Amino acid sequence: MITTQQQPCVTVDLVLLTLKNDELLASLVKRDHEPLAGVWTLPGGRVHPDEDQDALGAAVRILKAKAGLTSPYLEQLHTFSGAHRDPRGWSVSIVHYALVPYASVQERGNDRLWWVPVEECRSLPFDHLSILRLAVARVRSKTLYSSLPVHLMPKTFSLSELQRVYEVLLRAPLDKRTFRRRIEELDVVERVPGLLQKDGAHRPAQQYRLKPFRAHALATADSNLALRA
Amino acid sequence: MITTQQQPCVTVDLVLLTLKNDELLASLVKRDHEPLAGVWTLPGGRVHPDEDQDALGAAVRILKAKAGLTSPYLEQLHTFSGAHRDPRGWSVSIVHYALVPYASVQERGNDRLWWVPVEECRSLPFDHLSILRLAVARVRSKTLYSSLPVHLMPKTFSLSELQRVYEVLLRAPLDKRTFRRRIEELDVVERVPGLLQKDGAHRPAQQYRLKPFRAHALATADSNLALRA
Repeated sequence: MITTQQQPCVTVDLVLLTLKNDELLASLVKRDHEPLAGVWTLPGGRVHPDEDQDALGAAVRILKAKAGLTSPYLEQLHTFSGAHRDPRGWSVSIVHYALVPYASVQERGNDRLWWVPVEECRSLPFDHLSILRLAVARVRSKTLYSSLPVHLMPKTFSLSELQRVYEVLLRAPLDKRTFRRRIEELDVVERVPGLLQKDGAHRPAQQYRLKPFRAHALATADSNLALRA
Repeated sequence: MITTQQQPCVTVDLVLLTLKNDELLASLVKRDHEPLAGVWTLPGGRVHPDEDQDALGAAVRILKAKAGLTSPYLEQLHTFSGAHRDPRGWSVSIVHYALVPYASVQERGNDRLWWVPVEECRSLPFDHLSILRLAVARVRSKTLYSSLPVHLMPKTFSLSELQRVYEVLLRAPLDKRTFRRRIEELDVVERVPGLLQKDGAHRPAQQYRLKPFRAHALATADSNLALRA
Protein backbone atom coordinates (compact mmCIF):
# COMPACT_ATOMS: atom_id res chain seq x y z
CA MET A 1 0.00 0.00 0.00
CA ILE A 2 1.21 3.46 -0.82
CA THR A 3 -0.21 6.86 0.00
CA THR A 4 -1.41 9.44 -2.51
CA GLN A 5 1.43 11.67 -1.31
CA GLN A 6 3.91 9.17 -2.70
CA GLN A 7 2.21 8.36 -6.01
CA PRO A 8 1.08 11.10 -8.39
CA CYS A 9 -2.48 11.08 -9.65
CA VAL A 10 -2.57 10.17 -13.37
CA THR A 11 -5.22 11.70 -15.63
CA VAL A 12 -5.87 12.15 -19.32
CA ASP A 13 -7.17 15.53 -20.50
CA LEU A 14 -8.52 16.18 -23.98
CA VAL A 15 -8.45 19.17 -26.27
CA LEU A 16 -11.28 18.51 -28.70
CA LEU A 17 -11.28 20.97 -31.60
CA THR A 18 -13.68 21.70 -34.43
CA LEU A 19 -14.12 24.45 -37.01
CA LYS A 20 -17.37 26.36 -37.50
CA ASN A 21 -17.82 29.45 -39.69
CA ASP A 22 -14.08 30.02 -39.98
CA GLU A 23 -13.60 29.81 -36.22
CA LEU A 24 -11.67 27.18 -34.31
CA LEU A 25 -13.73 25.98 -31.35
CA ALA A 26 -12.68 23.94 -28.31
CA SER A 27 -14.99 21.81 -26.25
CA LEU A 28 -15.49 22.40 -22.52
CA VAL A 29 -17.46 20.33 -20.01
CA LYS A 30 -18.88 21.25 -16.62
CA ARG A 31 -17.03 19.50 -13.77
CA ASP A 32 -19.39 17.26 -11.82
CA HIS A 33 -17.26 16.89 -8.69
CA GLU A 34 -14.95 18.82 -6.38
CA PRO A 35 -12.61 20.59 -6.65
CA LEU A 36 -14.32 23.25 -8.78
CA ALA A 37 -17.61 21.38 -9.29
CA GLY A 38 -19.79 23.26 -11.78
CA VAL A 39 -16.84 25.00 -13.45
CA TRP A 40 -16.18 24.58 -17.19
CA THR A 41 -12.90 22.79 -17.98
CA LEU A 42 -11.35 20.63 -20.66
CA PRO A 43 -12.87 17.13 -20.67
CA GLY A 44 -10.71 14.60 -18.84
CA GLY A 45 -10.55 11.99 -16.16
CA ARG A 46 -8.36 9.60 -14.25
CA VAL A 47 -6.72 6.66 -15.91
CA HIS A 48 -8.55 3.42 -15.01
CA PRO A 49 -5.78 0.80 -14.79
CA ASP A 50 -8.32 -2.07 -14.74
CA GLU A 51 -10.02 -0.88 -17.90
CA ASP A 52 -7.58 1.17 -20.01
CA GLN A 53 -4.89 -0.57 -22.05
CA ASP A 54 -2.83 2.61 -22.07
CA ALA A 55 -3.24 6.42 -22.04
CA LEU A 56 -4.59 6.39 -25.59
CA GLY A 57 -7.20 3.84 -24.47
CA ALA A 58 -8.15 6.15 -21.62
CA ALA A 59 -8.44 9.06 -24.09
CA VAL A 60 -10.74 7.00 -26.35
CA ARG A 61 -12.90 5.99 -23.36
CA ILE A 62 -13.17 9.56 -22.04
CA LEU A 63 -13.89 10.94 -25.52
CA LYS A 64 -16.74 8.48 -25.92
CA ALA A 65 -18.13 9.01 -22.42
CA LYS A 66 -17.97 12.81 -22.42
CA ALA A 67 -18.44 13.70 -26.09
CA GLY A 68 -20.09 10.63 -27.60
CA LEU A 69 -17.38 10.52 -30.28
CA THR A 70 -15.84 7.24 -31.38
CA SER A 71 -13.03 7.76 -33.88
CA PRO A 72 -11.88 11.27 -34.58
CA TYR A 73 -8.24 12.02 -35.35
CA LEU A 74 -6.60 11.65 -31.93
CA GLU A 75 -2.99 12.16 -30.89
CA GLN A 76 -0.91 12.64 -27.78
CA LEU A 77 0.00 16.32 -27.31
CA HIS A 78 2.23 16.64 -24.24
CA THR A 79 2.29 15.58 -20.61
CA PHE A 80 1.70 18.27 -18.02
CA SER A 81 2.83 17.44 -14.51
CA GLY A 82 3.86 18.81 -11.17
CA ALA A 83 3.05 19.73 -7.64
CA HIS A 84 1.09 22.91 -8.29
CA ARG A 85 -1.25 22.25 -11.21
CA ASP A 86 -3.99 20.64 -9.11
CA PRO A 87 -4.92 21.39 -5.46
CA ARG A 88 -5.10 17.63 -4.77
CA GLY A 89 -1.32 17.31 -5.06
CA TRP A 90 1.34 16.15 -7.53
CA SER A 91 -0.46 15.16 -10.68
CA VAL A 92 0.17 14.06 -14.24
CA SER A 93 -2.07 14.80 -17.20
CA ILE A 94 -1.23 12.95 -20.40
CA VAL A 95 -2.95 15.40 -22.75
CA HIS A 96 -4.34 14.28 -26.10
CA TYR A 97 -5.93 16.41 -28.79
CA ALA A 98 -8.63 15.39 -31.25
CA LEU A 99 -10.03 17.02 -34.38
CA VAL A 100 -13.63 16.51 -35.33
CA PRO A 101 -15.65 17.83 -38.31
CA TYR A 102 -18.39 20.20 -37.19
CA ALA A 103 -20.95 18.03 -39.01
CA SER A 104 -20.15 15.18 -36.59
CA VAL A 105 -20.55 17.52 -33.62
CA GLN A 106 -24.00 18.51 -34.89
CA GLU A 107 -25.03 14.91 -35.60
CA ARG A 108 -24.14 13.82 -32.08
CA GLY A 109 -25.82 16.89 -30.50
CA ASN A 110 -24.39 16.80 -27.01
CA ASP A 111 -25.86 19.29 -24.50
CA ARG A 112 -23.09 18.68 -22.03
CA LEU A 113 -20.40 20.14 -24.31
CA TRP A 114 -19.86 23.85 -24.64
CA TRP A 115 -17.98 24.82 -27.81
CA VAL A 116 -15.97 28.00 -27.24
CA PRO A 117 -13.98 29.95 -29.86
CA VAL A 118 -10.37 29.37 -28.83
CA GLU A 119 -9.54 33.05 -29.35
CA GLU A 120 -12.14 34.02 -26.76
CA CYS A 121 -10.88 31.58 -24.15
CA ARG A 122 -8.91 33.77 -21.76
CA SER A 123 -9.25 31.90 -18.50
CA LEU A 124 -9.69 28.26 -17.57
CA PRO A 125 -9.13 26.47 -14.24
CA PHE A 126 -5.98 24.50 -13.36
CA ASP A 127 -3.40 24.77 -16.17
CA HIS A 128 -6.07 24.16 -18.82
CA LEU A 129 -5.48 27.47 -20.60
CA SER A 130 -1.80 26.58 -21.15
CA ILE A 131 -2.91 23.15 -22.37
CA LEU A 132 -5.44 24.65 -24.79
CA ARG A 133 -2.89 27.14 -26.10
CA LEU A 134 -0.28 24.46 -26.69
CA ALA A 135 -2.85 22.34 -28.57
CA VAL A 136 -3.86 25.25 -30.80
CA ALA A 137 -0.20 26.10 -31.47
CA ARG A 138 0.50 22.45 -32.32
CA VAL A 139 -2.45 22.28 -34.72
CA ARG A 140 -1.31 25.51 -36.38
CA SER A 141 2.30 24.38 -36.74
CA LYS A 142 1.25 20.96 -38.06
CA THR A 143 -1.03 22.70 -40.55
CA LEU A 144 2.08 24.24 -42.12
CA TYR A 145 3.56 20.85 -42.94
CA SER A 146 0.86 18.22 -42.97
CA SER A 147 -2.56 16.93 -43.87
CA LEU A 148 -3.88 17.50 -40.32
CA PRO A 149 -6.66 20.00 -41.26
CA VAL A 150 -8.29 17.39 -43.52
CA HIS A 151 -9.64 15.87 -40.31
CA LEU A 152 -11.77 18.99 -39.75
CA MET A 153 -13.53 18.57 -43.11
CA PRO A 154 -16.98 17.03 -43.67
CA LYS A 155 -17.24 13.71 -45.54
CA THR A 156 -16.95 15.44 -48.92
CA PHE A 157 -15.60 18.90 -49.71
CA SER A 158 -14.15 20.98 -52.53
CA LEU A 159 -10.47 21.93 -52.71
CA SER A 160 -11.48 25.59 -52.23
CA GLU A 161 -13.18 24.65 -48.97
CA LEU A 162 -10.07 22.74 -47.87
CA GLN A 163 -7.86 25.71 -48.77
CA ARG A 164 -10.13 27.99 -46.73
CA VAL A 165 -9.67 25.76 -43.67
CA TYR A 166 -5.88 25.89 -44.09
CA GLU A 167 -6.10 29.67 -44.43
CA VAL A 168 -8.19 30.01 -41.27
CA LEU A 169 -5.74 27.90 -39.28
CA LEU A 170 -2.69 29.68 -40.70
CA ARG A 171 -4.40 33.10 -40.52
CA ALA A 172 -2.97 33.93 -43.95
CA PRO A 173 -4.13 33.68 -47.56
CA LEU A 174 -2.55 30.90 -49.65
CA ASP A 175 -1.69 30.83 -53.32
CA LYS A 176 -4.26 28.55 -54.98
CA ARG A 177 -1.91 26.84 -57.47
CA THR A 178 0.82 26.15 -54.90
CA PHE A 179 -1.75 24.90 -52.40
CA ARG A 180 -3.27 22.47 -54.89
CA ARG A 181 0.13 21.10 -55.89
CA ARG A 182 1.14 20.61 -52.24
CA ILE A 183 -2.14 18.86 -51.43
CA GLU A 184 -1.60 16.59 -54.42
CA GLU A 185 1.93 15.78 -53.17
CA LEU A 186 0.53 14.93 -49.74
CA ASP A 187 -1.60 12.18 -51.34
CA VAL A 188 -4.39 12.42 -48.78
CA VAL A 189 -7.56 13.24 -50.72
CA GLU A 190 -9.27 11.65 -53.71
CA ARG A 191 -12.00 12.79 -56.09
CA VAL A 192 -15.47 11.46 -55.33
CA PRO A 193 -16.38 9.97 -58.73
CA GLY A 194 -19.10 11.96 -60.46
CA LEU A 195 -19.88 14.14 -57.45
CA LEU A 196 -20.07 17.87 -58.14
CA GLN A 197 -21.67 20.28 -55.73
CA LYS A 198 -23.01 23.80 -56.14
CA ASP A 199 -20.69 26.09 -54.23
CA GLY A 200 -22.80 29.20 -53.59
CA ALA A 201 -22.99 31.39 -56.67
CA HIS A 202 -20.05 29.62 -58.32
CA ARG A 203 -20.06 26.83 -60.84
CA PRO A 204 -20.33 23.30 -59.42
CA ALA A 205 -17.09 22.17 -57.72
CA GLN A 206 -15.52 18.73 -57.81
CA GLN A 207 -15.94 17.01 -54.45
CA TYR A 208 -13.09 15.27 -52.63
CA ARG A 209 -12.83 12.94 -49.64
CA LEU A 210 -10.08 11.70 -47.32
CA LYS A 211 -8.28 8.60 -48.64
CA PRO A 212 -9.20 5.79 -46.24
CA PHE A 213 -5.58 4.87 -45.42
CA ARG A 214 -5.04 8.43 -44.17
CA ALA A 215 -7.84 8.22 -41.59
CA HIS A 216 -5.42 7.99 -38.66
CA ALA A 217 -2.01 8.74 -40.17
CA LEU A 218 -0.88 12.19 -41.20
CA ALA A 219 1.02 12.91 -44.37
CA THR A 220 3.80 15.47 -44.03
CA ALA A 221 5.13 17.89 -46.60
CA ASP A 222 8.75 18.66 -47.46
CA SER A 223 8.03 22.38 -47.46
CA ASN A 224 5.99 24.84 -45.53
CA LEU A 225 2.59 24.84 -47.27
CA ALA A 226 2.36 28.62 -46.99
CA LEU A 227 5.56 29.13 -49.00
CA ARG A 228 4.88 30.34 -52.49
CA ALA A 229 6.96 28.30 -54.91
CA MET B 1 -4.65 5.26 1.24
CA ILE B 2 -4.81 3.67 -2.16
CA THR B 3 -3.23 0.51 -3.51
CA THR B 4 -0.66 0.26 -6.28
CA GLN B 5 -3.29 -1.52 -8.38
CA GLN B 6 -5.32 1.66 -8.42
CA GLN B 7 -2.57 4.22 -9.06
CA PRO B 8 -0.07 3.84 -11.91
CA CYS B 9 3.62 4.09 -11.15
CA VAL B 10 5.06 7.30 -12.65
CA THR B 11 8.63 7.36 -13.93
CA VAL B 12 10.81 9.53 -16.15
CA ASP B 13 13.09 7.78 -18.66
CA LEU B 14 15.83 9.52 -20.59
CA VAL B 15 17.26 9.08 -24.05
CA LEU B 16 20.67 10.73 -23.84
CA LEU B 17 22.31 11.08 -27.24
CA THR B 18 25.75 12.10 -28.41
CA LEU B 19 27.70 11.94 -31.67
CA LYS B 20 31.17 10.39 -31.93
CA ASN B 21 33.03 9.70 -35.20
CA ASP B 22 29.91 10.20 -37.31
CA GLU B 23 27.89 7.80 -35.18
CA LEU B 24 24.89 8.62 -33.01
CA LEU B 25 25.30 6.99 -29.59
CA ALA B 26 22.74 6.47 -26.83
CA SER B 27 23.56 6.07 -23.19
CA LEU B 28 22.58 2.95 -21.23
CA VAL B 29 22.95 2.26 -17.49
CA LYS B 30 22.99 -1.00 -15.57
CA ARG B 31 19.84 -1.45 -13.47
CA ASP B 32 20.71 -1.69 -9.80
CA HIS B 33 17.49 -3.27 -8.60
CA GLU B 34 14.81 -5.79 -9.56
CA PRO B 35 13.16 -6.43 -11.91
CA LEU B 36 16.06 -7.05 -14.30
CA ALA B 37 18.86 -6.00 -11.92
CA GLY B 38 22.18 -5.93 -13.80
CA VAL B 39 20.54 -5.45 -17.20
CA TRP B 40 21.41 -2.40 -19.35
CA THR B 41 18.48 -0.03 -19.91
CA LEU B 42 17.80 3.62 -20.62
CA PRO B 43 18.51 5.75 -17.54
CA GLY B 44 15.40 6.61 -15.59
CA GLY B 45 13.67 6.59 -12.26
CA ARG B 46 10.49 7.27 -10.38
CA VAL B 47 9.17 10.76 -9.96
CA HIS B 48 9.83 12.02 -6.41
CA PRO B 49 6.81 14.18 -5.60
CA ASP B 50 8.51 15.68 -2.52
CA GLU B 51 11.56 16.76 -4.49
CA ASP B 52 10.62 17.27 -8.15
CA GLN B 53 8.75 20.39 -9.22
CA ASP B 54 7.48 18.58 -12.31
CA ALA B 55 8.55 15.87 -14.78
CA LEU B 56 11.21 18.13 -16.28
CA GLY B 57 12.60 18.63 -12.78
CA ALA B 58 12.70 14.85 -12.34
CA ALA B 59 14.50 14.53 -15.69
CA VAL B 60 17.11 17.10 -14.62
CA ARG B 61 17.62 15.32 -11.27
CA ILE B 62 17.98 11.89 -12.91
CA LEU B 63 20.31 13.24 -15.60
CA LYS B 64 22.56 14.71 -12.93
CA ALA B 65 22.46 11.62 -10.69
CA LYS B 66 23.01 9.04 -13.42
CA ALA B 67 25.10 10.91 -15.99
CA GLY B 68 26.63 13.80 -14.04
CA LEU B 69 25.30 16.22 -16.65
CA THR B 70 23.78 19.53 -15.62
CA SER B 71 22.41 21.45 -18.59
CA PRO B 72 22.31 19.74 -21.94
CA TYR B 73 19.51 20.41 -24.41
CA LEU B 74 16.57 18.57 -22.83
CA GLU B 75 13.01 18.16 -24.08
CA GLN B 76 9.95 16.02 -23.46
CA LEU B 77 9.61 13.32 -26.14
CA HIS B 78 6.41 11.35 -25.48
CA THR B 79 4.69 9.55 -22.65
CA PHE B 80 4.63 5.76 -22.79
CA SER B 81 2.03 4.09 -20.62
CA GLY B 82 -0.02 1.00 -20.06
CA ALA B 83 -0.59 -2.27 -18.32
CA HIS B 84 2.02 -4.35 -20.13
CA ARG B 85 5.18 -2.27 -20.41
CA ASP B 86 6.47 -3.14 -16.93
CA PRO B 87 5.95 -6.38 -14.93
CA ARG B 88 5.14 -4.30 -11.84
CA GLY B 89 1.83 -3.19 -13.33
CA TRP B 90 0.25 -0.20 -15.06
CA SER B 91 2.98 2.38 -15.45
CA VAL B 92 3.69 5.74 -17.01
CA SER B 93 7.03 6.90 -18.34
CA ILE B 94 7.27 10.58 -19.24
CA VAL B 95 10.20 10.22 -21.62
CA HIS B 96 12.63 13.08 -22.21
CA TYR B 97 15.54 13.22 -24.62
CA ALA B 98 18.78 15.14 -24.22
CA LEU B 99 21.60 15.97 -26.61
CA VAL B 100 25.12 16.33 -25.32
CA PRO B 101 28.40 17.15 -27.15
CA TYR B 102 30.82 14.22 -27.04
CA ALA B 103 33.45 16.55 -25.52
CA SER B 104 31.22 16.95 -22.44
CA VAL B 105 30.78 13.18 -22.19
CA GLN B 106 34.57 12.78 -22.20
CA GLU B 107 35.12 15.57 -19.66
CA ARG B 108 32.67 13.99 -17.22
CA GLY B 109 34.07 10.47 -17.77
CA ASN B 110 31.35 8.34 -16.23
CA ASP B 111 32.07 4.61 -15.90
CA ARG B 112 28.48 3.80 -15.19
CA LEU B 113 27.30 4.88 -18.65
CA TRP B 114 27.64 2.64 -21.68
CA TRP B 115 27.45 4.53 -24.97
CA VAL B 116 25.99 2.32 -27.70
CA PRO B 117 25.65 3.18 -31.41
CA VAL B 118 21.89 3.50 -31.89
CA GLU B 119 22.03 1.48 -35.12
CA GLU B 120 23.47 -1.48 -33.22
CA CYS B 121 20.82 -1.41 -30.50
CA ARG B 122 18.48 -4.23 -31.46
CA SER B 123 17.10 -5.30 -28.10
CA LEU B 124 16.44 -3.51 -24.85
CA PRO B 125 14.25 -4.51 -21.89
CA PHE B 126 10.71 -3.20 -21.28
CA ASP B 127 9.62 -0.93 -24.18
CA HIS B 128 12.97 0.87 -24.20
CA LEU B 129 13.78 -0.07 -27.79
CA SER B 130 10.56 1.61 -29.00
CA ILE B 131 11.43 4.62 -26.85
CA LEU B 132 14.95 4.82 -28.27
CA ARG B 133 13.67 4.50 -31.83
CA LEU B 134 11.10 7.24 -31.36
CA ALA B 135 13.77 9.54 -29.91
CA VAL B 136 16.13 8.91 -32.83
CA ALA B 137 13.30 9.46 -35.33
CA ARG B 138 12.35 12.71 -33.56
CA VAL B 139 15.94 13.97 -33.61
CA ARG B 140 16.20 13.11 -37.32
CA SER B 141 12.91 14.80 -38.21
CA LYS B 142 13.75 17.90 -36.16
CA THR B 143 17.14 18.02 -37.89
CA LEU B 144 15.30 18.63 -41.17
CA TYR B 145 13.69 21.80 -39.87
CA SER B 146 15.63 23.14 -36.94
CA SER B 147 18.82 24.04 -35.15
CA LEU B 148 18.66 20.92 -32.95
CA PRO B 149 21.98 19.35 -34.11
CA VAL B 150 23.88 22.43 -32.92
CA HIS B 151 23.49 20.98 -29.42
CA LEU B 152 25.73 18.06 -30.40
CA MET B 153 28.60 20.38 -31.33
CA PRO B 154 31.63 21.22 -29.18
CA LYS B 155 32.02 24.78 -27.84
CA THR B 156 33.48 26.01 -31.14
CA PHE B 157 33.22 24.43 -34.58
CA SER B 158 33.46 25.24 -38.27
CA LEU B 159 30.43 25.37 -40.56
CA SER B 160 31.82 22.32 -42.42
CA GLU B 161 31.80 20.37 -39.16
CA LEU B 162 28.24 21.49 -38.47
CA GLN B 163 27.18 20.47 -41.99
CA ARG B 164 28.77 17.05 -41.45
CA VAL B 165 26.70 16.53 -38.28
CA TYR B 166 23.51 17.42 -40.18
CA GLU B 167 24.54 15.00 -42.94
CA VAL B 168 25.17 12.18 -40.49
CA LEU B 169 21.78 12.68 -38.85
CA LEU B 170 19.97 13.00 -42.20
CA ARG B 171 22.03 10.22 -43.79
CA ALA B 172 22.34 12.32 -46.94
CA PRO B 173 24.81 14.82 -48.39
CA LEU B 174 23.74 18.47 -48.31
CA ASP B 175 24.46 21.26 -50.74
CA LYS B 176 27.02 23.54 -49.07
CA ARG B 177 25.64 26.88 -50.28
CA THR B 178 22.01 26.04 -49.43
CA PHE B 179 23.06 24.69 -46.04
CA ARG B 180 25.00 27.83 -45.15
CA ARG B 181 22.12 30.08 -46.18
CA ARG B 182 19.63 28.06 -44.13
CA ILE B 183 21.90 28.09 -41.08
CA GLU B 184 22.25 31.86 -41.46
CA GLU B 185 18.43 32.18 -41.62
CA LEU B 186 18.12 30.11 -38.43
CA ASP B 187 20.17 32.75 -36.57
CA VAL B 188 21.66 30.26 -34.10
CA VAL B 189 25.42 30.48 -34.51
CA GLU B 190 27.89 33.38 -34.44
CA ARG B 191 31.53 33.77 -35.50
CA VAL B 192 34.07 33.51 -32.70
CA PRO B 193 36.01 36.76 -33.26
CA GLY B 194 39.50 36.12 -34.54
CA LEU B 195 39.39 32.36 -33.99
CA LEU B 196 40.53 30.25 -36.93
CA GLN B 197 41.40 26.61 -36.54
CA LYS B 198 43.40 24.21 -38.67
CA ASP B 199 40.98 21.73 -40.11
CA GLY B 200 43.19 18.75 -41.04
CA ALA B 201 45.02 19.35 -44.30
CA HIS B 202 42.73 22.25 -45.26
CA ARG B 203 43.27 25.93 -44.74
CA PRO B 204 42.25 27.33 -41.33
CA ALA B 205 38.46 27.51 -40.92
CA GLN B 206 36.46 30.24 -39.21
CA GLN B 207 35.13 28.98 -35.88
CA TYR B 208 31.52 29.43 -34.77
CA ARG B 209 29.64 28.99 -31.51
CA LEU B 210 26.01 28.71 -30.40
CA LYS B 211 24.38 32.09 -29.75
CA PRO B 212 23.71 32.21 -25.98
CA PHE B 213 19.97 32.92 -26.36
CA ARG B 214 19.63 29.67 -28.34
CA ALA B 215 21.03 27.52 -25.53
CA HIS B 216 17.63 26.06 -24.65
CA ALA B 217 15.33 27.21 -27.47
CA LEU B 218 15.38 25.74 -30.95
CA ALA B 219 15.11 27.83 -34.09
CA THR B 220 12.96 26.35 -36.84
CA ALA B 221 13.28 26.70 -40.57
CA ASP B 222 10.56 27.44 -43.12
CA SER B 223 11.86 24.74 -45.42
CA ASN B 224 13.34 21.31 -45.18
CA LEU B 225 17.10 21.93 -44.79
CA ALA B 226 17.88 19.10 -47.20
CA LEU B 227 15.93 20.74 -50.03
CA ARG B 228 18.18 22.22 -52.66
CA ALA B 229 16.94 25.70 -53.49
